[in-house]
Amino acid sequence: MPVSIVQADLDRPSGFQHLLKKAKEDLSSAKEKVIPIIQSVKENGDKAVKEFTEKFDSIRLDSVVLDPSSIQTNVPRDVQTAFLTAKKNIEEFHRAQKRDSWNVKVDGNLLGVKYTPIPSLAVYAPGGTALYPSSVLMGIIPAKIAGVKEIQLVTPPQKGGLPDILVWLAQILEIDRIVTVGGAQGIAAVAYGTETIPRSEFVVGPGNSYVAAAKSYLAGIGQIGIDSPAGPSEVCIIADESANPKWVACDMLSQAEHGEDSSAVLLTTSAKFAESVSKELEIAFVERPKRLEMKKKAIYENSCICIFPSLADCVTFSNLLAPEHLEIQTEDPHSVFGGIEHAGSVFLGNYSPVAMGDYISGTNHILPTAGGSRIYSSLGVDSFLKRVTFQEITKESLNRLYPHVKLMSELEGLDEEHGTSVKVRYEEDLK
Amino acid sequence: MPVSIVQADLDRPSGFQHLLKKAKEDLSSAKEKVIPIIQSVKENGDKAVKEFTEKFDSIRLDSVVLDPSSIQTNVPRDVQTAFLTAKKNIEEFHRAQKRDSWNVKVDGNLLGVKYTPIPSLAVYAPGGTALYPSSVLMGIIPAKIAGVKEIQLVTPPQKGGLPDILVWLAQILEIDRIVTVGGAQGIAAVAYGTETIPRSEFVVGPGNSYVAAAKSYLAGIGQIGIDSPAGPSEVCIIADESANPKWVACDMLSQAEHGEDSSAVLLTTSAKFAESVSKELEIAFVERPKRLEMKKKAIYENSCICIFPSLADCVTFSNLLAPEHLEIQTEDPHSVFGGIEHAGSVFLGNYSPVAMGDYISGTNHILPTAGGSRIYSSLGVDSFLKRVTFQEITKESLNRLYPHVKLMSELEGLDEEHGTSVKVRYEEDLK
Repeated sequence: MPVSIVQADLDRPSGFQHLLKKAKEDLSSAKEKVIPIIQSVKENGDKAVKEFTEKFDSIRLDSVVLDPSSIQTNVPRDVQTAFLTAKKNIEEFHRAQKRDSWNVKVDGNLLGVKYTPIPSLAVYAPGGTALYPSSVLMGIIPAKIAGVKEIQLVTPPQKGGLPDILVWLAQILEIDRIVTVGGAQGIAAVAYGTETIPRSEFVVGPGNSYVAAAKSYLAGIGQIGIDSPAGPSEVCIIADESANPKWVACDMLSQAEHGEDSSAVLLTTSAKFAESVSKELEIAFVERPKRLEMKKKAIYENSCICIFPSLADCVTFSNLLAPEHLEIQTEDPHSVFGGIEHAGSVFLGNYSPVAMGDYISGTNHILPTAGGSRIYSSLGVDSFLKRVTFQEITKESLNRLYPHVKLMSELEGLDEEHGTSVKVRYEEDLK
Repeated sequence: MPVSIVQADLDRPSGFQHLLKKAKEDLSSAKEKVIPIIQSVKENGDKAVKEFTEKFDSIRLDSVVLDPSSIQTNVPRDVQTAFLTAKKNIEEFHRAQKRDSWNVKVDGNLLGVKYTPIPSLAVYAPGGTALYPSSVLMGIIPAKIAGVKEIQLVTPPQKGGLPDILVWLAQILEIDRIVTVGGAQGIAAVAYGTETIPRSEFVVGPGNSYVAAAKSYLAGIGQIGIDSPAGPSEVCIIADESANPKWVACDMLSQAEHGEDSSAVLLTTSAKFAESVSKELEIAFVERPKRLEMKKKAIYENSCICIFPSLADCVTFSNLLAPEHLEIQTEDPHSVFGGIEHAGSVFLGNYSPVAMGDYISGTNHILPTAGGSRIYSSLGVDSFLKRVTFQEITKESLNRLYPHVKLMSELEGLDEEHGTSVKVRYEEDLK
């Protein structure tokens, strides 16, 4: 049962329509369950937080707040070097995103934008096997560079204590504290604050469906801002015969490794290349049997290879798909990229597998999924900055523009006060 | 019963705490009502849309889509000139917001950001007395400048036909069509598309609680992206004795004119100035009696004058308030502005009443309310652009970074495929 290969035709969307209908997680039942938890944490603070932790994590906590600098950690030197290298690259790319406030003269007046950071942030990091230290870098570094002053890491407590790598990262990233509360109760604790946990006005980071439901509910009632919800991981690869079929197969499997609902879609113009990649996938299944069932399910059920008549058609289809990750392994990847409008992060050329961006190249790996890149961006410095617009109107400009404001405010029935607020200044000169 | 004047003290927050607790509209009951409407429109398209229009607006429609260029309009020349002047200024300021794609070398690799527009947008414009033509400019111009290709205006049908000004604006802004469906059914129609209405992936613009609930529900399930919900309008004014008390009173009333739940908060260091403004408010109530009860309620119940010991304290408090509009009428407004971190749009100096920005100066008047400016921005070109990040890794860099990726992927249990996707490229050189 090899990966499915489709002769695709943009004029006959029936052949690939199912690829575009990406499941968005239905959080409604999880939401019903988290609302009472959130209410209880809102009303009873630390007491509720500790009770839920005992109930869900079977851990009794004296304190739910840790100062990372007070904890001894033991992280091997070579692991430290790896994470410090990633940190350096992520910082460099994100620093380049930072923008200076600016102003411009419009109609004789000074108008401008001042960029200011959001005041406070909580980054959620799942526990257990879902702990990805690299995601901690990706969530915190852009906020640090944006200038967010109050940053706390929220993560479930663990029986043997938190993993050293997590505490060490909190140390080198110089965040304010670690809040050891997981699930919906952790999100509620930072969203409202408790006796010992300061409130965070913005919450980002992946988590299970209860975490996602709590974030979504609290954002819906205006209590916090959040990042866009993360769905199953996905890659789209546009490749021609200049690409290496073994490498492309590896890249597809690298997504499949995330879960059976992950998806890898290869778009190519070559039936021969499609066959070679299919064969390489089968070879890989034999050579690398870890998590085999999961990977097979992802590849056989949620992935596919589409053969299009032209690279231009591949680009059109990729824009419909709006993938989280897009690899372009063609003879001239930059020209193909020229047509790309909707994608989370794009990997150009044969030496840019997604894993390089996942870990170390410097781009952010927290990306919109499920077609979200048609309207949303990856996490970045802009996610944590606001544009405060400003203006300073001159007397001359006000005098010149008042007759227009008079008419417009009359048309909207707001001349009595809106109109007057300009008129009193206008009339000053008439005295 | 004059406006309340408070001797404020940052160390005793009890005196002003109520000002910071801004009501966010509870949409839960409206949401329950709109869900069946949305479902019906999703399933039955134009048929449902027409039925709801007949039910709610008592209007029978043959077609729900208008091509603005097919309609004759009659807008007085001076009104045209006023709106064209506003359009020019808004375009100029928003054009200055547009950013070029860029790239940078990080660790020897090409990394960058390509800005691309969202694919489609619907701008909602309320009907009847809530129609603000200026808001149509504010919603559409940034999207046009961002390069959004498909833009439709959604607005309730009206018995005598749509107002000329609305159709004329649609013409000069060169949008694709007007969808004459109001309320939740209008939002649902563009969110899912019907036989005659193309789908919009993003929906912005103010509306009543059903419109807001429909937007919030559809955004919550990931069907559309939306702007932040708009609450009652508000202004904060920081002023010292160099300001004109009559002008300041006018600016407070200009917010009060929006509704009895609107709020105007004056922060000053001078008790004398506070008294003068209070007197000017009373004089204005006599001189301009239109909407008197509404304005009095806004000023007496939802507004206040706070006297702080210093301008620095005024700034601190303003940042807690995070007002939608902030006016700074002090001797040196720029130095006061230096401390401002959270505000929607800021108006510097004595000749910059909010009404200038509402209509004509060029800044956007669609702003976060209810303290939202602590984490959100005003509508702008960035609202409609995404950051697509990209990277091209060199063979040399991959070889240098592979040992780090190996360690990091091992730590996360993703070495088998993530690690291998880099390793196969690394090993190429070893052959």
